[in-house]
Amino acid sequence: MKALRFINKQLELQEIDLKPTPENEALIRVVIAGICATDMEIIKGYMDFEGVIGHEFVGIVEECQTNPDLIGKRVVGEINAACGKCVWCMKGLGRHCPDRTTLGIFGRDGAFTEYVHLPVENLHIVPENITNRNAVFVEPLAAAYEILEQINIRTDVPVLLIGDGKLAQLIIRVLARRGCQIHVAGVSERKIERMNGLYSRVYIREFPMPDIYTIVIEASGSPVGWDAAVSTVEPRGTIILKSTFADAFSFNPAPLVIKEVTVIGSRCGTFGKALEALSGGMRVSDLIDAEFTFDDWQEAFKKAHDPETLKVILRMEGI
Amino acid sequence: MKALRFINKQLELQEIDLKPTPENEALIRVVIAGICATDMEIIKGYMDFEGVIGHEFVGIVEECQTNPDLIGKRVVGEINAACGKCVWCMKGLGRHCPDRTTLGIFGRDGAFTEYVHLPVENLHIVPENITNRNAVFVEPLAAAYEILEQINIRTDVPVLLIGDGKLAQLIIRVLARRGCQIHVAGVSERKIERMNGLYSRVYIREFPMPDIYTIVIEASGSPVGWDAAVSTVEPRGTIILKSTFADAFSFNPAPLVIKEVTVIGSRCGTFGKALEALSGGMRVSDLIDAEFTFDDWQEAFKKAHDPETLKVILRMEGI
Repeated sequence: MKALRFINKQLELQEIDLKPTPENEALIRVVIAGICATDMEIIKGYMDFEGVIGHEFVGIVEECQTNPDLIGKRVVGEINAACGKCVWCMKGLGRHCPDRTTLGIFGRDGAFTEYVHLPVENLHIVPENITNRNAVFVEPLAAAYEILEQINIRTDVPVLLIGDGKLAQLIIRVLARRGCQIHVAGVSERKIERMNGLYSRVYIREFPMPDIYTIVIEASGSPVGWDAAVSTVEPRGTIILKSTFADAFSFNPAPLVIKEVTVIGSRCGTFGKALEALSGGMRVSDLIDAEFTFDDWQEAFKKAHDPETLKVILRMEGI
Repeated sequence: MKALRFINKQLELQEIDLKPTPENEALIRVVIAGICATDMEIIKGYMDFEGVIGHEFVGIVEECQTNPDLIGKRVVGEINAACGKCVWCMKGLGRHCPDRTTLGIFGRDGAFTEYVHLPVENLHIVPENITNRNAVFVEPLAAAYEILEQINIRTDVPVLLIGDGKLAQLIIRVLARRGCQIHVAGVSERKIERMNGLYSRVYIREFPMPDIYTIVIEASGSPVGWDAAVSTVEPRGTIILKSTFADAFSFNPAPLVIKEVTVIGSRCGTFGKALEALSGGMRVSDLIDAEFTFDDWQEAFKKAHDPETLKVILRMEGI
């Protein structure tokens, strides 16, 4: 089958053999997949990953020994495959299991291919009222919901969201649905417009911001955004750090100490809340800027590299 | 009067005029003062401070218009002088007041001199059973107690303390008094010995550590210590960041995001707990490695620069 592999620091469309489905895993035919900022970081060297990339997908289960009822069902899949036995797994935090593999990111081939394997417990059936073009956002939308699992955000004082990219676009939808007052700091008028006015104040290319905030969410993925978060958070305030960075950058932690700031790293979430929101009427498919067939993957990645682009979708039909 | 001033990037003993005592402030004759790591950072450029340095002291109140009862009393002083009116001051967090000055660190002449001014509300009378050589540690000891104000440390699982310097020595005493199990990571056998066996496990020049910890306290003040904290903290664990650094260093926050780590900056504390502990029998004066008269300040700073030295004391008598 065709698969998009990152190998020898190069992204290539290769013909690879479909491996047998491991016990307790399902074989899923990928229907649609999304290109994520993390994919772009992997191509820059993040996590030293080699293999099939891609971790946002919607597919149809084709094989599943342990749970044959799943066959034919439309599913999305949590990306961390855990041991199921360690203390993290026992706490329901398999995404922190030390023996985990992560779809298309660490130790496990990803979804930019025709067929993908995932453990049965990672799969969620997609409710019928969610279209593929919305369902493909479940993984990053769950990462946005993770913020609300980690911290209670008061709705009577504004929260500052730094970033206007794909993840920030989902975060603002999640926060707005929760009733939060949102101030946004971004760099692109066009992308800020895509936030559909869900903010009550906006800063465009205005760093640092003139006000201070109890909670700042850094989702820009840039050192400038990080510095702005550190300087804009109030004493004893909280920075939610959503961005992963491929490269180190120069940083002085003294302001974190002086202001006694709390920084909370925030990564993947569980899919339940995201599916519930989409099934309940949240729409995110308007964030799709371009769709390509899998054979046009080079065009797709070129488009995804454009800093003004939000989501780029790969459709697997026709291969 | 003689004063040790940092001016034009140079530390100099200068003759300066004693300024009139501001309203609501007291004039204190400095008896004994301690050299702190922050003083050494200031000399490297931290906070761009210019003026009389020094912020750890014990003194005798000589003038105090608003509270004459204080005259003749032996006192220590909280170092942040706040406005008393803003929301931070109302919350009892004057040390985060945006209009604050900080003794010998920011906007206010410090204690390495004959006489120092501080607002009356900053002063604490030293109980008679605390010697000067213990009382001079109240300020850094309060900073160590600040950790326990910010986070509850369970006593049934070990906490990792990174650092073996002056602040780490006080932190381990505070944690041991609270009944915590402490593992220590340091670089100097001699300094680790000074911890009087208050730890149950020790790592010497062993970074990263082979185990993982729910709570890691970084008090080494070095980028190596910070990196070790990030790699040793368990997923969803907490790093207490006690160190201030004069310089930025290269840092990749991705592990904080991947492990969903919480970093809590921790600075000054209030003096109450520290005075209570010292009055209740805690002893810290054994951390004093050398004492100099003020006229021998150059020798004192030379000694303080030696990485094997713990606390260096300046005695103000004889000037």
